[in-house]
This record gives sequence, structure tokens and C-alpha cells, in this order.
Amino acid sequence: MIRDIFAEPWRENIGTDDWVILQDRYDPEENLKYESLFALSNGYLGIRGSYEEGTKITLPYLYINGVFDKSETFMRELAALPNWLGIRLYVEKELIGVENCEILEFARALDMKQAVLYRHTVLKDKKGRITKIEGRRFVSRDNVHRMGIELLVTPMNYSGIIEAENIIDGTIVNFYDAPRFKVKHMYQTANERLGEDGVYMETATRDRHLHVGCGCRLEAYKDGQPVMGNRMFNAFGEQAVEFGDVHVKEGECVRFVKYVSMYTERECPAYALHTTIKDEVDRFAGEGFGAELEKHAKVYEKMWQEADVRINGDFELDRAVRFNIFHLMSTGNETDDRVSVGAKLLTGEEYGGHAFWDIELFMLPFFSYVFPQMAKNMETYRYHLLDAARDNARKNGFKGAQYPWESADDGTEQCPDWTIEPDGTCYRCYVAVYEHHVTADVAYGIYDYVKITNDKDFLLNEGAEILTETARFWASRCEYIPEKDRYEINQVTGPDEWHEPVDNNLYTNYFARWNLRYVMVLTEQMKREYPDAYASLAEKTGLTDEEVKSWDEVQKKIYLPRKEGTNLLEQFEGYFDLHDVVIDKYDENDWPIRPEALNHYPKGETQILKQPDVVLLLHLLGEEFDKELIKENYDYYEKRTLHGSSLSPSIYSVMGLKVGDDSRAYRYLRRAAFIDLLNLQKNTREGIHAANAGGVWQTVVFGFAGVSIEEGILKICPNMPKEWTDLTFRLHYYGSWIEITVSGDNTASVKLLSGEHAKVNINGSIQEI
Amino acid sequence: MIRDIFAEPWRENIGTDDWVILQDRYDPEENLKYESLFALSNGYLGIRGSYEEGTKITLPYLYINGVFDKSETFMRELAALPNWLGIRLYVEKELIGVENCEILEFARALDMKQAVLYRHTVLKDKKGRITKIEGRRFVSRDNVHRMGIELLVTPMNYSGIIEAENIIDGTIVNFYDAPRFKVKHMYQTANERLGEDGVYMETATRDRHLHVGCGCRLEAYKDGQPVMGNRMFNAFGEQAVEFGDVHVKEGECVRFVKYVSMYTERECPAYALHTTIKDEVDRFAGEGFGAELEKHAKVYEKMWQEADVRINGDFELDRAVRFNIFHLMSTGNETDDRVSVGAKLLTGEEYGGHAFWDIELFMLPFFSYVFPQMAKNMETYRYHLLDAARDNARKNGFKGAQYPWESADDGTEQCPDWTIEPDGTCYRCYVAVYEHHVTADVAYGIYDYVKITNDKDFLLNEGAEILTETARFWASRCEYIPEKDRYEINQVTGPDEWHEPVDNNLYTNYFARWNLRYVMVLTEQMKREYPDAYASLAEKTGLTDEEVKSWDEVQKKIYLPRKEGTNLLEQFEGYFDLHDVVIDKYDENDWPIRPEALNHYPKGETQILKQPDVVLLLHLLGEEFDKELIKENYDYYEKRTLHGSSLSPSIYSVMGLKVGDDSRAYRYLRRAAFIDLLNLQKNTREGIHAANAGGVWQTVVFGFAGVSIEEGILKICPNMPKEWTDLTFRLHYYGSWIEITVSGDNTASVKLLSGEHAKVNINGSIQEI
Repeated sequence: MIRDIFAEPWRENIGTDDWVILQDRYDPEENLKYESLFALSNGYLGIRGSYEEGTKITLPYLYINGVFDKSETFMRELAALPNWLGIRLYVEKELIGVENCEILEFARALDMKQAVLYRHTVLKDKKGRITKIEGRRFVSRDNVHRMGIELLVTPMNYSGIIEAENIIDGTIVNFYDAPRFKVKHMYQTANERLGEDGVYMETATRDRHLHVGCGCRLEAYKDGQPVMGNRMFNAFGEQAVEFGDVHVKEGECVRFVKYVSMYTERECPAYALHTTIKDEVDRFAGEGFGAELEKHAKVYEKMWQEADVRINGDFELDRAVRFNIFHLMSTGNETDDRVSVGAKLLTGEEYGGHAFWDIELFMLPFFSYVFPQMAKNMETYRYHLLDAARDNARKNGFKGAQYPWESADDGTEQCPDWTIEPDGTCYRCYVAVYEHHVTADVAYGIYDYVKITNDKDFLLNEGAEILTETARFWASRCEYIPEKDRYEINQVTGPDEWHEPVDNNLYTNYFARWNLRYVMVLTEQMKREYPDAYASLAEKTGLTDEEVKSWDEVQKKIYLPRKEGTNLLEQFEGYFDLHDVVIDKYDENDWPIRPEALNHYPKGETQILKQPDVVLLLHLLGEEFDKELIKENYDYYEKRTLHGSSLSPSIYSVMGLKVGDDSRAYRYLRRAAFIDLLNLQKNTREGIHAANAGGVWQTVVFGFAGVSIEEGILKICPNMPKEWTDLTFRLHYYGSWIEITVSGDNTASVKLLSGEHAKVNINGSIQEI
Repeated sequence: MIRDIFAEPWRENIGTDDWVILQDRYDPEENLKYESLFALSNGYLGIRGSYEEGTKITLPYLYINGVFDKSETFMRELAALPNWLGIRLYVEKELIGVENCEILEFARALDMKQAVLYRHTVLKDKKGRITKIEGRRFVSRDNVHRMGIELLVTPMNYSGIIEAENIIDGTIVNFYDAPRFKVKHMYQTANERLGEDGVYMETATRDRHLHVGCGCRLEAYKDGQPVMGNRMFNAFGEQAVEFGDVHVKEGECVRFVKYVSMYTERECPAYALHTTIKDEVDRFAGEGFGAELEKHAKVYEKMWQEADVRINGDFELDRAVRFNIFHLMSTGNETDDRVSVGAKLLTGEEYGGHAFWDIELFMLPFFSYVFPQMAKNMETYRYHLLDAARDNARKNGFKGAQYPWESADDGTEQCPDWTIEPDGTCYRCYVAVYEHHVTADVAYGIYDYVKITNDKDFLLNEGAEILTETARFWASRCEYIPEKDRYEINQVTGPDEWHEPVDNNLYTNYFARWNLRYVMVLTEQMKREYPDAYASLAEKTGLTDEEVKSWDEVQKKIYLPRKEGTNLLEQFEGYFDLHDVVIDKYDENDWPIRPEALNHYPKGETQILKQPDVVLLLHLLGEEFDKELIKENYDYYEKRTLHGSSLSPSIYSVMGLKVGDDSRAYRYLRRAAFIDLLNLQKNTREGIHAANAGGVWQTVVFGFAGVSIEEGILKICPNMPKEWTDLTFRLHYYGSWIEITVSGDNTASVKLLSGEHAKVNINGSIQEI
């Protein structure tokens, strides 16, 4: 078992191999990938899996969710904060590290079960001295302000002195290895001793001066007794360094423990950051590394009880699915409803930590079913930014609330208007100008969240207010065309960004109509059943009956393009008039090969898609369409989709299974599940694909297990792949918590774990459990 | 020829091979050595030969002579200043550098003739793109506030965009790779744009807040036209970075030029640093890199006319001797009499840039004979610190002036009282307490300088004042022992530090007597011939006839230990009673092998020496001893000296030749001349051995050419080694400038180059020239 590689006293805590991601050799070219794979997060902060000793190739980023800054860059992005990972050990001034020594033994492993990163290294320095360094680190989910590293260091063939540097590195810049985009978001406000021993660094964001403190102390123990000698503190500009040394004897193990704490001004007044952190580090050290780790592990044990998906029959896939869930759930936040989940979680810098439409469509279903409180926080995050969305609509000449394409902490549009090409020329980026569907996606998210959780309270208050304002936006966004007596939405881009902009994008128009209709039904119901809530809504939004009536006019006459006389929905007005290029060749992985015709026409002049707007629509609002229509459209668009987005395959996988085309579903799932573990898109270095991770979960649960909610009843209609013998997972649903087990023969059983009884529809038969 | 490796347009400027030190392969383990060997200095500042693109192993230090700081360390040391070497070039974010690419071609070379460092590299990045980078850099000696780097960059097999970062790196700490001793001396006071384009960083020393400014601009040219696009300035904490990009075409050369300027608050008020530096950079860029380089080269041409020593018959040695002279003269300073020359010049951090006794005994003779103005500045430096030496004497309970063992900018003792062992234990360091001979060495330096230059003005003013105060120190340091009716100096250490402390060290006692006698003669002469100068001296020092009389009493009765009834001088009282261990084995290089007896006794209990006090005394004051005595003592001590100091071999070489034992002289010289080029002491990484460099020059000129001054007449009595066919060098002497050529048969000729006629004694025959 993998765990046998690591230090003997730690083994019993490490999961079996299905819980463990192993790195078994050191290759500096792989550093950035592993930094993403081995990132640890506790929802509050995330830190990439860099090495304690430092390496040449590294992007050692640490983010606290919600700490954004713009400075000279194009957008407010998650600021790279001072990193506390650094522990450098020296013997006679020789750094004992993976790049300074010959590596005799090497392994690192992420134990997903307890969210602990382990290392095992045996290193031989230039003078032949051999040192064994075994390590583990965690960022506590029990107390998110505590993080720790433990190193067991054994000189194998020498006695002497080990010198240690305990480092907080404040020199780190965002986009460090992209010279053109490098930016430093934090400026230093303090670099000082933390109490008697230890180091403390405080920085602040440059634009808004939000203070962030980080403090830590490195201790060394022999037989439980502290043995660190000759401590010295040094402020090396933007590095805080604590020096100490330890006398070591051949074969004798010294235990180094680094106790770390971070707070920001959001949780603690700036003047109290230093003392708060000092006290936290003192208490942490007092209680002990092991005690905190145990509490942290207990939290993860409980989280996995909720979140684990157990697939029997495909060991590697089972572990890969778990890996996606691990990162998604580690970033989710139970306590802070002012932050969302960025497109790369807290594992990398691409997309600046912004919330996109992926939140609602790809990640939210997982959270709604598995961690409803986290889902609620994500929705509440949108509610907190409703005023900003109102401002955004006003600024763009519309009414109501228009959500930004990219959302950071203040809800202003963070998608840049201009982008710089590698050659330094600027080009105008129209995504934020045209891609309006995000506002419908936010509205849909509320619907979807409530559909799963039955969180009426949220719906009647925050939800209704958002839905009213987004409906109002759509009504103002629609344009009445008298000659055609219809409403149109022109100059937009749908999820398929290869056609930009277009008129009357079906996905957008349909969801605009859906938003208007849904809020009309909702407010009607509120008037009847929740008059107080309605009164409050009317007061907050100024909603009147006349306005609702005007919405009715719009929704009735909104144009939904389709091929006349057929079931075929048209992606946008005029789509069927484009060159009809079809994918007809597939590579050895059954992956579509770019049609030769694309060498003759620009993509935008063909029917070839990046991702399928229509199929996505049918996936999200399937209950509004009949099966035949769904199948015909699936067949049509599937042949024209090149999956230019990582979000595309999982949708096809779910929908393929729904229409009985499971030929590619399993391959789509495998591709999605391994996208980061095997670095299939070559950009895992920039962080974990968060939406894809949500898509993986959806593929398993909605696709293969066939879970959906129809008319308020949970429906299970499995399409198990032949490779799987069984599949087990747990869901929250209408306040109940159930365990679903599906067998290879597509039979399923449901167990009620907590809550009231529930109705489920298994393969068409409704059962009370 | 080596120069043919480098860019074609530059070749004609590069010296023939006897002027060029070549590095023909890249080995990161050699980086630190080459940083010392290839350091450039213009007397004002020195910068180590690090790579523009940065490497993992590097100590990229830049010092300005006189900018000292203590902070948390034990002593005021030369502060590592922000380094302006950084130019990073990227193609599609890939750094084009020696450690990031495959090296197809590599060479660097120091052209000593013009003091320019050249590079030639052809690098292939991971994507197969090949880039040729040819470079040269210099620190101007024409205008010491200008430094420049020129890179000719040619994409060999691609076209595209080269992104460039122009960097000033302020993160550098002293003793970076010695964790226990790391210290940061500078804090940042500004990091900003330099005018429109370019970067500016200002820092200050932490203790005394001396401001140092550095500004630079990177330009790119094609066909002489500036082509740098998309400039951006970034302050990354303690790094100032200017970004820009250039479109490049396959096979087309782009010329990058970095114009740099530095000033400190000593030359320019702090408030004006930025504008002064901006103007300097603007003027430099306006006049052009080539124009400044030409002026710089003219200065070096003139310096080499003074300093070159031409040895025919041993090509490698000839170049190695030149290499030692190059570094020594590059650090010497014609304009600033408030700085001296550190033990590692400005090439490394060991010994903190302090002036030791080596200044007077090892380096000063070179400067006095070759660059009298630099010598005068070194002596004036001592004079400026006379008050500090007075304080030092008072503090230690003595009268007069006691020079510190280690001297930085303010003349306080900078030799630490305590030192930390590698294991972190502190031990008491007694060097400053016991090694008093430095005060006699300073006095001797004045005598020696005046003996060569006949600078009467200095002697009668600054010189006489120093000599009076040092004599006064010695008189108060001597202790009258009534029982023996003699004066003694007890508890001291001589140059040989393996016996510490001792009573009545002959070297110290003899020089104390010499100082007293010399000043008595001098003041007597001043009274007679220069009564005004004497009156001024008496006023400044309070010297009275009574005091001089008391000195006479001391000097007459000072104890000078020797073996009764023989010529053998005793290193210190009781030395001959120690275990008489003798060196009787030599290794294949004729280098003494540590006697086995040292395994039984501590060195201090034996007669084994680190370096020979008595022989050194005989070298310095040879005219006071007869030949037989010199030879007997040479023979005795030579057998007991292990050369634990790099200063020892050159003395033995000179003295060996003097007494007719030339068996080892040539080997001693080779060892000394190659000590850094071949890294014979394994510590060249820490800087060039400056005293040794002076010793090399002395060995050639005083030893093999047999130059000395006796009774005011320059005497040439060559002892040419059989390997040499002839030897030519030039000396200043009593205001004349002469060229001396010695032939292999020990005949010599002298040519008067400028000045009045001069008398020389060649092999015993006195000639007028």
C-alpha cells in the first residue's frame, strides 16, 4: 500500500490506495502540475503543494478566498499572499533539498481522506551526508486559522548540527512566470518577531489596504523536548526568517514542527492581527500539532460521509472521481457567505479566482445535494452582490440586475474589456459585453438550489429579490420588433463562444423567457401564500402588477429560433444558414478530429461548436421538452461539437445517457475525471478545473446513476456502464439525507440516513422510504 | 585567439590572450569562483561577475567602497547593495538563460586590458528555439557613476517576440548562503520609475541611513533605431522591474543596451539622488554605450602603462601576475581618500571589506611604486581615522593612537570580540585585544610610502602626526620591569597567530622601538629644517621635549629577545623553549607537510608557525641587519613555517632570493599568482586575495627583479628564474617614472620615462639616468 512508504507512526492515519494520490519521482518539469494537484484548502485559504525547501520551478501561491486586488492588472484577482511553507534545513551551509542533493528516495502523496500531504525523501548532499526527511502538512478545517507542517529529520550517516530557517516569503508576485502579466498585489506593513520566538509578517492589498497577517514558529523536538538553539530573527526585506539550530546524532530523529496562523482584517481588526495570531500560534503549539490534526481529520471524516462516491469496478476512475470531489469540497465554505468558488478553486491563479456562470451550472448541483450549507453560501454571495448587479445593469443601460461575467469580491464586472496578446498588442475582449446569459444562469441557480433543498426561506427572500431583478433585466434587454411582433435579444453570445456575437441565441432567449415566467409564477404564489414576503419583495424592488403584466407580454412574444416544421432547435437565428460542417472522424480515443473544412472557413462561419448551447438547455430544463425533441437535437449538435471547453464533455455524457447514446459517455467521463491528474489539457499548472470537477460529479450522479428531480420527486434511472459492479453515494434532498446504491444491473436501493421519510422514483416505481 | 570567440565587431578591442581570462564551459558549481574572478571595479564600486539572467548558485554582490553597515551582525561590513545586473529575456515566457536552456555554445572572458567582461552563449530552449546572446559589460573608470551592459541577441531559427525584464534587485542579503550569518543591511526608500522610462531604486543603510540610489534603463535597437515596445514599470517589493518587448526576425540581431548609474549621499544630497541619476542615465544613453566604453578603455590603457609587468618565458604566469595586478589596481582609488582597500577588494564579502595590516605591508608598496596617488589616498584614509585611533587607545587604557585591527569607515575597531562557531556556540575572539602590531604597521607604511615617493609634504603633516601618536601609544604600551631594568610588551600576538598571546613578541617590540626611534629622528630633523611644520605638529599633538626624552629611555631599554650569543632572533620570549618541531617532509609541489608531531602537541606549544614574524621583520627592515643574521634566521624559521596564511609564501619568496635560497622561490610565486585563478585555497568564491595579489607583485619586483631602496637610491639586484627570458615593468620613484628591463642573465637596464634624472644601483654599479 502506498501509505507504507511514509513514516511508520503516520501510516495508520493514511487512507487505503483509493484515497491516495502518489507522486513517486521528482521531476522539476512536473512541479507546477503537482503544486495544483497537491494544493490544500480549508475553504478559508488555499496553498499550493510547493516544497518546503523551495525549488527553481515553482509558483508557490497562497490565497485567502475573498482577498482580491487589482493594482496595475486588468482585474481584481486573488492576491498571492506571503507564503509560510518555507523551512530550509542546512548542514554546514549545504541546503538539504530535492534540488541541492542527490535524491536517494522520493515520494509525496496526497491523502484525500484526511486532507494531508505527505513526503518521504532521502537526500544525499555533495559531501555524502545522507538525511531522511519525512513530512506532512495540513491546513486545518477544524480551525481554519491554523496550518502546520511536521518534518521528521534523521541524519543517516553523520552527526553534527542542522541549521534551520523558518520562512515567511512575502516576495511572491502573481503570474510570476509570465513576465508581461507579473503583478504584486500586497505591500508589506510589518516584518517582525512574533512574540519571543517566531516570525510575523503583515501585508495589505494595494488598492483597498486590506491587512493580512501571517505568523509562525518553528520548533524542534527530541523525545518531546524542545531543542532549538540559537534562535535569531531577521527581516530580510520581504522575507521574514527565523534561524535556529539543532545538534543531531547519526540515526536519531529530530521532529520539526511549524505552527502557522493567518488572519485578515475581515475577521479581526488590523491593530489586533499580530496579537490574535500570536495567541493562535501559542495555543496551537500548546495543544500540539497532533491534537489539531486529529480534529481536522474528524471534520474530513464527516465531510467524506457526505461526499464520497464509491465506484466499484474501475479502481483508477473511482480514485479520480474522488480526487475531483476532494478539491471541490475542500474549497467550499460553510461559514462565509461573502465568497464564492473560483474557476480554479484556490489552487491556481488562472481566471483570478473569479466566480463564473460555472458556479450555478457546474458546481452548485454538487453543493446543493451534498453540502447544502455551502450551496446556500454560494447563493447568498450572489445576493450580497445584487446591488452591484443593479449598478451594472444601470451602467449598461438596462433595468434590474445584470450579473457580471466575472465576479470577485465587490460584484463589479471583472472581465477585462481589453486583453493583451503575447505580442503586446491589445485587443478588445467582448465577453462581458455580449455574454449576458450569466444573469439567467444565476436565476436558474436559485431555482435549482431550491428544487433540491426546498429552502423556501431563501427563495421567498433573497431568491425572489434576485429573480425579480434579473427578470426585470431581461424585460429591458429584450427589444420589441414591430414588423415581426416579437421580442428579440440581439448582439449576444451564448455559452458557445465560437459564434460571437449573434442575434437571438436560443439558450439566452429561452432562459430570459424562463426567468420571466418563473418569477411570475413565484410572485403569484407569494401573493397568495406568503403575503408578507411578497410585500417585502414589492417594497425592496418596487415591483407592481403592471410591471408583471408587461413581462407577460415579453415572455409570450420572445423569439425562440427553430427549424420550422421540425423538432430542431436553432442555436441562434441564422445558425442553420452557416456552412454545415460535420464531424465525421474520431481519433483512437473516440475524440472528435477537427474537420478539414475548418481550414477553409473561419469557425464562426460554420456550424461547428465549442460547446452545445442547445444540449445544455435541454439538460437544464429537460422537463420542458419531450424525449424525441431532446434526442433529435442531441444527435444533431453532438456531430457538430468539438468540445473546445472543458465543460462540454460532461454535459454530453449526461445527455447521451439520457437519450440512450451511451457509446461515448464513459469515455467522456474518464476524460473529465482525469483531466488534471493526467494533465490532459496541459494547463493543470494553472489550477484544478473546478467546473469540470462539478461536471464529473454530475456525470456520475445525474448520468450513470440517472438522478433527477421531477415534479418534486427524486428519480433514479441508472445507466450503469458495464465496467462498474456498483456505485454508492449520498445526497441531501428536501431536508432528508439518503444513501443510494446502484448495481451493475441498474437496480438501485435507497437508504434514509436522516430526516423525515422521502419519496423516490426508482426506475419508474415510486417508493416511500 | 580567445577574442575570436566573441562578437565580431568587438574583437578588435579585446586584448591578445595574455590579457584574457577565459571561462570555456558552464558549471554551476563554479559560479561563485567566477563571480570573484570576473568581478569588475572602478575604485568607486565593485560588482561580481554574475549572469544577467540569474542562476541558482550565485552571490550577486555589488558594493560601493565605503558604504558600510552593521545592523545585527558583528561588525560594520560592506553592504550588499541593490544589484543592477539583471536582464531577463523571454520567448513565449521561456527564460533564455544558461540554466533554463540547453547550452550549445558558451564562453565568458575577462579582458583585463580594457576591463570588460564578455560573454558568448548560444542557447536552445525547451521548444527548440535557438538564441545567440553575445554580451559585454563594464563599470566605467572614466565616469565612475556609469556602468553598462550590451547584449547582441539573435534568434537563430525563429521569429517572434522577445520579452525583456530590466531588473534592479534589492532583495540581496549579505552572507546569503550562510544561514547563520545572513544579514540585510539596506532598507528600501524608493522603488519607482526613472523619469519616463527606466527604473529607480533607492535604499539606505539601516544604522546610519546613508542613501544609495541606482537607476537604469534598458533600450533595444535595430539598425540604431530604438524598438522597445510596451514598456511597463513594476515595483515588485524589493525588485524594480521594467518590462518591454521587441519583435524579432530569424537571423536578425537586436542590440540591447542597459545604461546604469549609481550615486550615494556622499556625493549628492539624498533629495537630489533621483534627478542626478536620471540625468546621468539620460546623458549616458545620449552619448552612447560605445562612447563611454571608449573613454573607459583609454583610462585603462593609461593605467596599464603604469602597472603592467611583462614576463617573457612563462606565458601562464605572466597572465596570472597580470590578473593579480588587474584586480588590485581596479580597486585602488585616485579620488577618494576616505576609503581604503578591503582584504577581498570589492570582489567578495569575506572580512567585510575591512582594511587590515595587509594594506601597509602587502598592498601599499605596489601602489606607492605604481599609483602614488592611490597610495597617498590609502595613507590619508589612515590619517582621517587618527582621531578614532586616539579614542581607541584611550578606550584601551593607552595614550596616543592605537589603530584598530580591522578598519571600516569610521576607524572604530571592527574586529568582533565574539565569533560564532558553526555549531552556534560563541567564542571570544582576542585578535583585536592582542594583535597590536597593526599600529606599528601603519607607522611603517608612512615611512615606506615616503621612502618611495619622497612625499615630504605628507610626511611633515599627516605622517608626522600619525607617527607621533603611534609612538606615544607604544611608549604607553611598554611596561617597565624594574628587576630587569627593561621595557617589555606583554600579552600580544604577532603576525603569527598560532601563538596567542605571548610576551615580548620580537616583531612587535622591534617595531615599537623602530616607531619611537624614527619619530625621534624625524622630529629632530623637523625642528631643524621645518620649524613651522614642527610647531604645528607640537600644537596638534602636545608633543614636548620631555616626552621625546622619555621615549628615548623606552626605546633604549626595550627588550628584543634572541638566543644569547647567536644571530638567532627569538620570535617571542620563550619561543625557543617550545617543542622544537621541524618540517622535514614536502609534498610533490614542494609544499611543507604538516609534521606528525602536531598530532601530539597543540600548535601553540611548538615552534611551528603560521607565518614568520622574524623573517617578515627582516624583509621590512633589512637594512638594519647584516646578511649573515638574515640568512641564519631565514634558514631557521623557514623549516618551521607551515604557511597557514596566504601572506606567507610571497615573503619567503622575496627573502629566499635575498639570501640566495631560490630553490622554492619560483614555486612560492606560482602558488601565490594562481591562488585565485586555480582556486587553490578553495575560497576564491569569497573574493580575490588582495594582500596576496600585492605579495605577487612584490615577489616579482622585489624578489626576482631585486628592487629595493637603500640610502635613498633605487637598487636593482635581479635573481631571474631560469624560466624567464626577460622581465619589464615600470615604477614611480622619487617623482621620476622609470622602466626597468631585466634579462635572463640578470643584467638590467633602466629607462627614464618622465621626471628629473634619477640614480639607480644596478647590480652594485650606480648609474645616472
